[in-house]
Amino acid sequence: AGEKAVRFNATAGVARQGGRPFIAKSLAELTPSLAAAQIVDYAPTGGDPALRKLWKQALEEKNPTLRGKLYSLPLVTAGITHGFSMSADLFIDEHDSVLIPAPAWENYDLILSGRRTARVAYYPVFNEKNGFNCEGLRDAIGRTGTEEKLGLVLNFPHNPTGYSLAETEANELVKLLAETAGSGRRLVVILDDAYFPLFYEDTLLKESLFARLVDLHENLLAVKLDGATKEYCAWGLRIGFLTLGGKMPAAPEYDALEEKLLAAVRTSVSSACRLSMSLLVRLLQNPEHKSEFAAFHAMLAARYRKVKAILAEAPPGELNFLSFNSGYFLTFHTGKVDAETLRRTLLDRHDIGTVALSPSLLRVTYASVDDHELPELFQTLFAEAARISAHTPCSRR
Amino acid sequence: AGEKAVRFNATAGVARQGGRPFIAKSLAELTPSLAAAQIVDYAPTGGDPALRKLWKQALEEKNPTLRGKLYSLPLVTAGITHGFSMSADLFIDEHDSVLIPAPAWENYDLILSGRRTARVAYYPVFNEKNGFNCEGLRDAIGRTGTEEKLGLVLNFPHNPTGYSLAETEANELVKLLAETAGSGRRLVVILDDAYFPLFYEDTLLKESLFARLVDLHENLLAVKLDGATKEYCAWGLRIGFLTLGGKMPAAPEYDALEEKLLAAVRTSVSSACRLSMSLLVRLLQNPEHKSEFAAFHAMLAARYRKVKAILAEAPPGELNFLSFNSGYFLTFHTGKVDAETLRRTLLDRHDIGTVALSPSLLRVTYASVDDHELPELFQTLFAEAARISAHTPCSRR
Repeated sequence: AGEKAVRFNATAGVARQGGRPFIAKSLAELTPSLAAAQIVDYAPTGGDPALRKLWKQALEEKNPTLRGKLYSLPLVTAGITHGFSMSADLFIDEHDSVLIPAPAWENYDLILSGRRTARVAYYPVFNEKNGFNCEGLRDAIGRTGTEEKLGLVLNFPHNPTGYSLAETEANELVKLLAETAGSGRRLVVILDDAYFPLFYEDTLLKESLFARLVDLHENLLAVKLDGATKEYCAWGLRIGFLTLGGKMPAAPEYDALEEKLLAAVRTSVSSACRLSMSLLVRLLQNPEHKSEFAAFHAMLAARYRKVKAILAEAPPGELNFLSFNSGYFLTFHTGKVDAETLRRTLLDRHDIGTVALSPSLLRVTYASVDDHELPELFQTLFAEAARISAHTPCSRR
Repeated sequence: AGEKAVRFNATAGVARQGGRPFIAKSLAELTPSLAAAQIVDYAPTGGDPALRKLWKQALEEKNPTLRGKLYSLPLVTAGITHGFSMSADLFIDEHDSVLIPAPAWENYDLILSGRRTARVAYYPVFNEKNGFNCEGLRDAIGRTGTEEKLGLVLNFPHNPTGYSLAETEANELVKLLAETAGSGRRLVVILDDAYFPLFYEDTLLKESLFARLVDLHENLLAVKLDGATKEYCAWGLRIGFLTLGGKMPAAPEYDALEEKLLAAVRTSVSSACRLSMSLLVRLLQNPEHKSEFAAFHAMLAARYRKVKAILAEAPPGELNFLSFNSGYFLTFHTGKVDAETLRRTLLDRHDIGTVALSPSLLRVTYASVDDHELPELFQTLFAEAARISAHTPCSRR
């Protein structure tokens, strides 16, 4: 009703003055070129329609394979985590099996098994050649038994390793998913595209798998999660998107799913931040944002190549990096060195922050360190690993 | 680790340049007086510590009874709904009984019984004298049986009626809660203080019930939900707070509860919007905000008195307002007039937006209509109700 009521909008719980939302001076002063309605008014539950449309346009520009295919209008979420959390609430039932990558961002398991009591199992990201382990995923699917429904989380560029699929690997993966769906399993594939499209090698699949999955099989529902968070450097603005695709019998199913999604937004956060949406609308409407983020992409690609060069000349030792070719990070296997000890040492002795993912995995965000400082970062890392290694008893091997 | 790592912060998934978060020009230009870290960086899971502290100070200024009492540091939520949703997730188990007011904001039931499958029952807000129905609540508590745990939602100023407790009513209510806790029931009392402190009558309790409940009884946990949303006209910024209080054996319990809350934030939204927090820190640090919001309060109080005057001279008819003395709204019982028909008529014929809460309840937000336009709003409302009433068959009575 809020949209039509132009005479007196006595609908929502918003205080108005002269028909416009009341806004404190100090709030308005901090965002001088936006109207009160763009700053403090409520956004619609599913998000600002202008932003949803802009995001859909951007999706098709970045994923030309999507053009002409049927999929939902992206729904605005309060960040990508919120999108994942709602996907778990809506599409994963209690005790459903869900496969997530190993290693994985820890929140997948916290949300799926902590919040939802789903049965989480892992598939290995890498095979022995340090490429994508499609056979490992096939085996993991096999081990989930014969229950009809199966959840699968795919995350490329992958957090924490920074690995993305080569085109050939993507083809193999899509084939596996088609076979699995064809065998009668109902697949819910959650695509966490947070770090899209930060790819740094020519051989990689440059489109989201979503473009391949939306019309793959009647038994497959693809849930695409992405956002301004990593792609447009809007981490703290908390704006993500949730887009659904599947070869479903008819378009009206999207309306029913949209209703479910809106209910999930309403009962979790009511709506995402209006001001953040307004900022992103301005960003995406500004034609310069494309060259600006092309430059950002190039800056990260340069850091990536620098890291590759540093690693190529690194001394032999306990640290071995896992394959990476995209995103913000790389991850080291720390061998006999305890990753948490290494992390703490780097922090305490050198004020260097890293993340210990397990006793033998350490994640390093090279996207947060300037080009010219990368040598010092990695030299310190290798030196401390060597020092700890020299003091570690052999039994840790 | 993010706080300590000053040399190289290769911790979180944030891209930096010169040690500062990368920010797009068009985002920075829209918020010219804030640093990138205040706009796009991640906030800590529990929220900006400066904001949490400012909110606690403000709580004690507005609720002097709280001073010196033990309660938690307010945790930042992504709006008050998010606080309610997390409270339901954390403190209400499946099949727990929870009492909510009748009438109530519809999201209470959607969240409690829809998301959590709690057993929701209602207590009547009003008695026959149009005052708070403490006996009705006592009866409703009695009807929940003898199970140990009981959830209770209290919401003053009340949505949708705009009713708040007189001091005498508050005393009676607190006594009932003490008796209930004393009888061995474990009470989780969720206080939705969204519309605090917009009270317009001298006889009303001007502090949150939270101040009375934090040290009431060992068997009572008080969960205070409030926020910048309604109080500081920051609806779309999506910043709420969740504060816990209870006469628990020792302070360390708050640390354990804080850990649970942080996990709930992490698995639902990761964190709330950094930019919104930065704006609110500026607002609360600006000494002028107090006089600005005193003027806002006075503006709404003037509208309230105007509405009262209009209603005092209203023609007799089907519409009867429920007691109101605070907040943004009032609610009419629409008698034999169907509230949805009335709502639709007001919208279609007059571009006036209202909310039909049930077939016989219509909510009107007078806080969104200027003083001088209130007569037209209510005259139109009464005229349309009379017109519909004249065309309604007697059987609807």
